[in-house]
Amino acid sequence: MNAELVAIGSELLGPLRAETNTLWITEQLLEAGVSVAARVTVADELPLIASAFRAALGRADVVIATGGLGPTADDLTREAAAAATGRELRRDPQILARLRERFAHYGRTMSDTNAKQADLVAGAAPLANPRGTAPGQRIEVDGRHLFLLPGPPGEMRPMFEAEVLPRLRAALGPTAVVRRRVLRIASMPEGEVDQVIAPVYSRFDNPKTTILGSPGQVELHLVARGKDADQAEAAIARLGDALHEALPGRIYSEDGRDLPAVVLDLMVARGLTLALAESCTGGLLASRLTEVPGSSRVLERGYVTYSNRAKTEDLGVPPALLEEVGAVSEPVAAAMAEGARARASASIGVGITGIAGPDGGTPEKPVGLVFVAISGAAGSAWRRCLFPGSRGRIRYQASQYALEMLRGGLLGLPLP
Amino acid sequence: MNAELVAIGSELLGPLRAETNTLWITEQLLEAGVSVAARVTVADELPLIASAFRAALGRADVVIATGGLGPTADDLTREAAAAATGRELRRDPQILARLRERFAHYGRTMSDTNAKQADLVAGAAPLANPRGTAPGQRIEVDGRHLFLLPGPPGEMRPMFEAEVLPRLRAALGPTAVVRRRVLRIASMPEGEVDQVIAPVYSRFDNPKTTILGSPGQVELHLVARGKDADQAEAAIARLGDALHEALPGRIYSEDGRDLPAVVLDLMVARGLTLALAESCTGGLLASRLTEVPGSSRVLERGYVTYSNRAKTEDLGVPPALLEEVGAVSEPVAAAMAEGARARASASIGVGITGIAGPDGGTPEKPVGLVFVAISGAAGSAWRRCLFPGSRGRIRYQASQYALEMLRGGLLGLPLP
Repeated sequence: MNAELVAIGSELLGPLRAETNTLWITEQLLEAGVSVAARVTVADELPLIASAFRAALGRADVVIATGGLGPTADDLTREAAAAATGRELRRDPQILARLRERFAHYGRTMSDTNAKQADLVAGAAPLANPRGTAPGQRIEVDGRHLFLLPGPPGEMRPMFEAEVLPRLRAALGPTAVVRRRVLRIASMPEGEVDQVIAPVYSRFDNPKTTILGSPGQVELHLVARGKDADQAEAAIARLGDALHEALPGRIYSEDGRDLPAVVLDLMVARGLTLALAESCTGGLLASRLTEVPGSSRVLERGYVTYSNRAKTEDLGVPPALLEEVGAVSEPVAAAMAEGARARASASIGVGITGIAGPDGGTPEKPVGLVFVAISGAAGSAWRRCLFPGSRGRIRYQASQYALEMLRGGLLGLPLP
Repeated sequence: MNAELVAIGSELLGPLRAETNTLWITEQLLEAGVSVAARVTVADELPLIASAFRAALGRADVVIATGGLGPTADDLTREAAAAATGRELRRDPQILARLRERFAHYGRTMSDTNAKQADLVAGAAPLANPRGTAPGQRIEVDGRHLFLLPGPPGEMRPMFEAEVLPRLRAALGPTAVVRRRVLRIASMPEGEVDQVIAPVYSRFDNPKTTILGSPGQVELHLVARGKDADQAEAAIARLGDALHEALPGRIYSEDGRDLPAVVLDLMVARGLTLALAESCTGGLLASRLTEVPGSSRVLERGYVTYSNRAKTEDLGVPPALLEEVGAVSEPVAAAMAEGARARASASIGVGITGIAGPDGGTPEKPVGLVFVAISGAAGSAWRRCLFPGSRGRIRYQASQYALEMLRGGLLGLPLP
């Protein structure tokens, strides 16, 4: 079963206003095992709303609309539902009587405009609205369901829970349980990941796989369905295992942890401490690590050595070396890592030096060139990287690469 | 002229992911005088995307789609645009060559899957993407325009500005001119700002004022209309002047620069250098400053002294002082600032120490307590702050407060 959500209201189409009803409904639906195929937000214009309803009823089993049920001239959801389904609007005497009572209860007289809130699409069942004036409506159209709900969340949510969710659950039967898992991979381009895993995930109809790439990171979102939790979890595990096999050692997390947390946990488990020496990343790696609660157990200290003088004074990088090979070089990255480690008496040192741009690049050392070195008791490893993109992206990818090198080193994996 | 926006991506239909591209585009379109009639978010399924395109092209003058232009199997926007317009997809040899070059430049071979990024809908004009691999497309359909833009905001926004907006402006011809200005204020709560300025901005019908608050920062968005640029700019200037008067010295930027850039510019102009000593912010302040191109002219170095030993060894904070008053204290913040300044021979030193949480708080020193100190040739200043919120928010607000203290000190303003 799939659903489409239609949010109605010109005010929702401004730049600053977040539309929250459909997010909340999505969450409820996913939990119940209904996936959302599309979300639409339309202005308060009759042809637009009707067209959105027609399109949604043409492709979804359940269409849930919010908003436009009030008494004012721009509340046009009822009229649009009638137009989209080719039915009449009929004023319901019972609803009208209840509206009048409600107004009387609050000591007010009902204006004529309010009466249109008693209009029902022919064949529709009204949905009670204990928190407000406008009732909702449930309309069956060729075996598909169109629900009209009010816009204010305080009215919409209880109506959804009381009138919509139980009907969907009954229609679904006891079958649909959804489980999801997010697998994360660092420092491997999206295209490369997909080339490796497409033959794997395309064999599976369940779970469904979505790939999300961002600089330095790829996420694989697996969504499985089953008739119970065991079945859904087994489906996730089958694909998960196959993906681990296709990308040996490269999936760093499947429990929601980000890369800094994974690296910190590995170091805590091994009783290791860390010292950082950052040039082009300028504290970004330290900041990402210290964002994780408890990172003080691992991170002894960090140095942001932007100037050559700082590299020499704080990390003991020989001035002759800087002179000879330049600050952006493998030997300097290694000397920074070793200097930080020695100075902090830490188990592991990391050194990062590069050209984040946008200026400062040369043909030999272009913008995006970064050297990352890791130093431990057993020796050093370093890598030359060339990262694409803006200054911010280069810096982020450099920090991500250093973390992935650390993780690989701790687990005895080959360098990425 | 009206527009419809189509955001493509199954990941955007989960409950947790905010879809921000269409909000940003809406803002740009409104400024240009184009209203948005509908926004649609659809899953990565070919019939859904094609149906959304057909519906949108049936009711809007301009349809702008974002996402689904990547190399993976679930990137289906090109195929859907071809299906919706009844045209073929053709592989463009020039685009293919540029893709290969780009991959070669970064030392990678292009996989076969990447080649589909060179597919153009017949009759479409490609839109250059200097920030990424996938070009956009502009397709004319019966006098209507369908633009296909990439999903990553860093690629989408420059393409929208360079390729979409100028075409819409040309089509609209001379209409009302809109000018906007964003005034930024640091380290002052939204409610406090509003209390001071509401009597001011409510006197103005033009510009319209929107207040956007986030931890440590408030933005005032002024949008003015006029029959020409002079008139719109005069309206902005009138309200802008009145707001400066209501908040003397507190508006740090109205030209788009963020606080780190403003502080760095002030220091460059005065020929000053900076050294940082961070404990609870763990490199966040260094990272925010070094995110700005050219920051190396100012930032001599930074120390992330998470441990007491690092505070003593790197910054010369006396062990007896740490013992006596604790690491989270005014004297230690001041000693850190002075130690960093002296060690780096910098003009100004900053020290930050506090409890970012979620653990480690006590009744006397609760989570959120942060001491910020600034040290210069003329002496030191420090402040005790208590920031609300999560670890991330506390750290961000602490870094923001330190920057605002620096700015105030450089301009001779009273401490915030």
